[in-house]
Amino acid sequence: GLVAATFTPFTAEGKLDQEPIGTMVDTLIASGMAGLYVNGSTGEGVSLTGRERRQMAEAFVEAVAGRIPVIVQVGHNSVQESRELAEHAQEIGANAISATPPTYFKPASIELLLDSLREIMQGAQGLPFYYYHIPRITGVDFDLHALLSQAAKDLPELNGVKYTAQSIHEFQACRAHFADKFDLLYGCDEMLLSGLGAGANGAVGSTYNFAPGLYRRMIEAFRQGENEAARELQLLSVEMVQAFVRYPALPAQKAIMEMVGMPIGPPRLPWRDLTTQEKQTLEGDLKKLGFFEWRE
Amino acid sequence: GLVAATFTPFTAEGKLDQEPIGTMVDTLIASGMAGLYVNGSTGEGVSLTGRERRQMAEAFVEAVAGRIPVIVQVGHNSVQESRELAEHAQEIGANAISATPPTYFKPASIELLLDSLREIMQGAQGLPFYYYHIPRITGVDFDLHALLSQAAKDLPELNGVKYTAQSIHEFQACRAHFADKFDLLYGCDEMLLSGLGAGANGAVGSTYNFAPGLYRRMIEAFRQGENEAARELQLLSVEMVQAFVRYPALPAQKAIMEMVGMPIGPPRLPWRDLTTQEKQTLEGDLKKLGFFEWRE
Amino acid sequence: GLVAATFTPFTAEGKLDQEPIGTMVDTLIASGMAGLYVNGSTGEGVSLTGRERRQMAEAFVEAVAGRIPVIVQVGHNSVQESRELAEHAQEIGANAISATPPTYFKPASIELLLDSLREIMQGAQGLPFYYYHIPRITGVDFDLHALLSQAAKDLPELNGVKYTAQSIHEFQACRAHFADKFDLLYGCDEMLLSGLGAGANGAVGSTYNFAPGLYRRMIEAFRQGENEAARELQLLSVEMVQAFVRYPALPAQKAIMEMVGMPIGPPRLPWRDLTTQEKQTLEGDLKKLGFFEWRE
Amino acid sequence: GLVAATFTPFTAEGKLDQEPIGTMVDTLIASGMAGLYVNGSTGEGVSLTGRERRQMAEAFVEAVAGRIPVIVQVGHNSVQESRELAEHAQEIGANAISATPPTYFKPASIELLLDSLREIMQGAQGLPFYYYHIPRITGVDFDLHALLSQAAKDLPELNGVKYTAQSIHEFQACRAHFADKFDLLYGCDEMLLSGLGAGANGAVGSTYNFAPGLYRRMIEAFRQGENEAARELQLLSVEMVQAFVRYPALPAQKAIMEMVGMPIGPPRLPWRDLTTQEKQTLEGDLKKLGFFEWRE
Repeated sequence: GLVAATFTPFTAEGKLDQEPIGTMVDTLIASGMAGLYVNGSTGEGVSLTGRERRQMAEAFVEAVAGRIPVIVQVGHNSVQESRELAEHAQEIGANAISATPPTYFKPASIELLLDSLREIMQGAQGLPFYYYHIPRITGVDFDLHALLSQAAKDLPELNGVKYTAQSIHEFQACRAHFADKFDLLYGCDEMLLSGLGAGANGAVGSTYNFAPGLYRRMIEAFRQGENEAARELQLLSVEMVQAFVRYPALPAQKAIMEMVGMPIGPPRLPWRDLTTQEKQTLEGDLKKLGFFEWRE
Repeated sequence: GLVAATFTPFTAEGKLDQEPIGTMVDTLIASGMAGLYVNGSTGEGVSLTGRERRQMAEAFVEAVAGRIPVIVQVGHNSVQESRELAEHAQEIGANAISATPPTYFKPASIELLLDSLREIMQGAQGLPFYYYHIPRITGVDFDLHALLSQAAKDLPELNGVKYTAQSIHEFQACRAHFADKFDLLYGCDEMLLSGLGAGANGAVGSTYNFAPGLYRRMIEAFRQGENEAARELQLLSVEMVQAFVRYPALPAQKAIMEMVGMPIGPPRLPWRDLTTQEKQTLEGDLKKLGFFEWRE
Repeated sequence: GLVAATFTPFTAEGKLDQEPIGTMVDTLIASGMAGLYVNGSTGEGVSLTGRERRQMAEAFVEAVAGRIPVIVQVGHNSVQESRELAEHAQEIGANAISATPPTYFKPASIELLLDSLREIMQGAQGLPFYYYHIPRITGVDFDLHALLSQAAKDLPELNGVKYTAQSIHEFQACRAHFADKFDLLYGCDEMLLSGLGAGANGAVGSTYNFAPGLYRRMIEAFRQGENEAARELQLLSVEMVQAFVRYPALPAQKAIMEMVGMPIGPPRLPWRDLTTQEKQTLEGDLKKLGFFEWRE
Repeated sequence: GLVAATFTPFTAEGKLDQEPIGTMVDTLIASGMAGLYVNGSTGEGVSLTGRERRQMAEAFVEAVAGRIPVIVQVGHNSVQESRELAEHAQEIGANAISATPPTYFKPASIELLLDSLREIMQGAQGLPFYYYHIPRITGVDFDLHALLSQAAKDLPELNGVKYTAQSIHEFQACRAHFADKFDLLYGCDEMLLSGLGAGANGAVGSTYNFAPGLYRRMIEAFRQGENEAARELQLLSVEMVQAFVRYPALPAQKAIMEMVGMPIGPPRLPWRDLTTQEKQTLEGDLKKLGFFEWRE
């Protein structure tokens, strides 16, 4: 199923704003999300202080109230801080943990990466753990098939991977060869159809927040073998993404959230908010694509 | 259809060896190839001298004798040399031209890239020209959608693009928006199913030389909406590629050509040939995959 | 003068170990250090939790007790956390602040970088602030001359830069053109002589912890115009660095600290400690260089 | 001594223009150049056809007529073509050969790089050969100290290296440890003082074409131990480079050649010529620096 990588709402002054979370969560659940991924890249998790990350995790777990699983992302340059965040997530009732590797200092080998993940997992033993593979941001880009082969031996308690990369062949081999051991969630919304073709049965992304219907219909078409219809639906997703990546991608998506009735404020530094003019142009471009008709 | 990026045969001493070309070409045509792509990355075109590139182009055009189209790759660090190679290709009866951009000095803008392509195309006016987009090797990585938008205005005589990259969403947008203007050939064999899902109707690759049947069946399954069957066939391709990329990829594929009865000798520097031991291990690994049964 | 980027001592179990700090600090002051740079890359600042970073800062400020200035590095992916760390550093009596930019999300422009630094500086108004430029690690690599030109207008309260890069010409231009506005500290120990030649009058580094005498003599030779002598001394530094970068560089330097009588324990993940064998080999290699004779 | 990396003159239509070469060469020799480096990056060697490269090499060898050594750069993606260019250079009386490694396909190991160089050298046995290390352009970035260690055993007939990189510590170690085996020429004009400090006794560069006097005086100051004077002279070089790298660097330098009375026409694609407006602004900026007074 689809898992929404949630945004973090801020006030105009850049403080955490818990107020919109209830509505966001209810809307996401109503739209059929199979889970939420909190404090990830979309959620600007790394831009929060340790205290704020804990507050956000709590707010989402509380708002969801057990209706769907909540995965809390705890990646941090400090493995020890990640571990403490994992511990906190378990205490407040999160359903799973996920983490990027440390990135300021990068693990020099698969072994050191697995050592780092093992350390983090010890903060929340018993909770499923997903390695967050997003090499374009982290610069940590081990061959994932080799990584899973080694994890099968050395870190079998690893539950899976959030795979945010374009190497579909790598994703496919991992899916096919480790289906019984590890759960792989595909992470590129604008290439979800490729992910499905390679065997994905779950996906995490940011645009599922505001265009869930599009993707539901695309998955259905794919399952029916209606490949042309699926392609046309994926094209809408591609065009939607093209429209907003003319701007800084995260702030643009926060602006879209406001356009669809879920205002969540500006991003934090080092992002900048879109200008009013930019927001109007973006809204116009999305209208031309029919976004507001087909998104739900 | 499928276009094979042909290998260049060398003698054990590293001289051009035209002898195997006739058999190679007949085999490829018999296997249903829709065209040949000569002197590309697979063909070690850049490792040949100017004289040798011309000899190779002639040998293939002659061996094909008009049965299927031959695209000659003329990319070179010297735009002027590319132009002269294009001119030669036209003279000997090639059906189309393709070129990487100069890479030692890289075009600083889309405009300068298009200027470079225009210059090359003037060597073979009237022949279809394909820009060869392979950013992992060239380091020239302009947004291809922006490039085609500008080419539609400034270089409409461009015929298409050989797209060798993993950004399926970009490929899909280019296919959808420029279908009437530009022909896009997908270039990652191990992700062909993703390419098909995004609308590819042609592909160029190296493994089509020795595993054409696999891909024909995959394309057929995809067209029938049999997505699970298509995925299983793509998986075989992925596993085949996994088997040989444990070694330097180009020499390993030349070794496979020998295994399937088309010996073409070693690669040129800066590649090294596989050792006898490596070739035996590779052959064993391919056997385990059933490669020799399903490849044709 | 020379500023030592201090190491962070850990117990064998990876807990903070404050015990060695007093001796370390006394030794460094006795060796003539002009200041200490705490919680930087050498200090594994990013590998500490927020609580631990504060403890380390306090421990060093307390141990120094005002004898020389202490610069506390507060860079963090969360600009807000950086700001809070800056605030804490000021409260405990640090003499200056320094910070890397956020790196998970990178500032997209010089303007957004300066906005981020301004936000951090507001946590410790009145304390000198040094931007920590280390593009090889952060991936944030704006032209520093352009950055300082803009800072001169938009962020004149910036005090200076810790410049850890090899572009000596850029460093020289910045030194020459902004001497009255910004203080530049050079950050590559193995190229300090180049830095001096370009006008550096201060430097921060890790090897100043265990080889201060070498660098003092080199600076003196340079000042006297004894360029051949200076080169020979720098060569010793280069050879010392060559000896330890055969291993992971940070753990190797922690091992050297033990060899010179200041044991500070292992590094934290994602680093690994050197093996006993590696430590013995390294010690042997350093002995051959005469390190233990000329280091002080 | 200083070796000028010569420019290649073109007509307005982009054809080779041999006419200015005599004057260029006489001027360079009169300015005290210790040698010429022909068809390098500055000379747009890779942008010439094979025929044109040979013509350029001949034209320079002829114009120099034995007064100073001429090094011909023969790097090419085709090792075989490099070898043939080396052979030609020897036939026409060049004094030395130099080559970049192949870059489209990059040598995967030091061994394969040395194999490639050996092959090229066999085209001109007996002529000194310089490996051209310029990783920023070639992407081939082996540790040069390790490379020379292996070359000392496996390719002792290597004569030296044109070292165009900023890792002064690496350059220093290579100079110090291989002084009796290999000749190292430093290749970053704007960091020449750092190179001298590290032991360089020779340098190759493009700005030596039009500002030889500046560098002669700087070298003299350095040799006298007048480090402040040397720094001030290097600063002029840095500011001169800052002035022209606001534009594409190669075309800007060709424009400067015209300003100093040696017009050599535009660059070839993929470069673009500076506009008339850009040339005027650049000339004005250079005047402000006093360039036309101190350059000779």
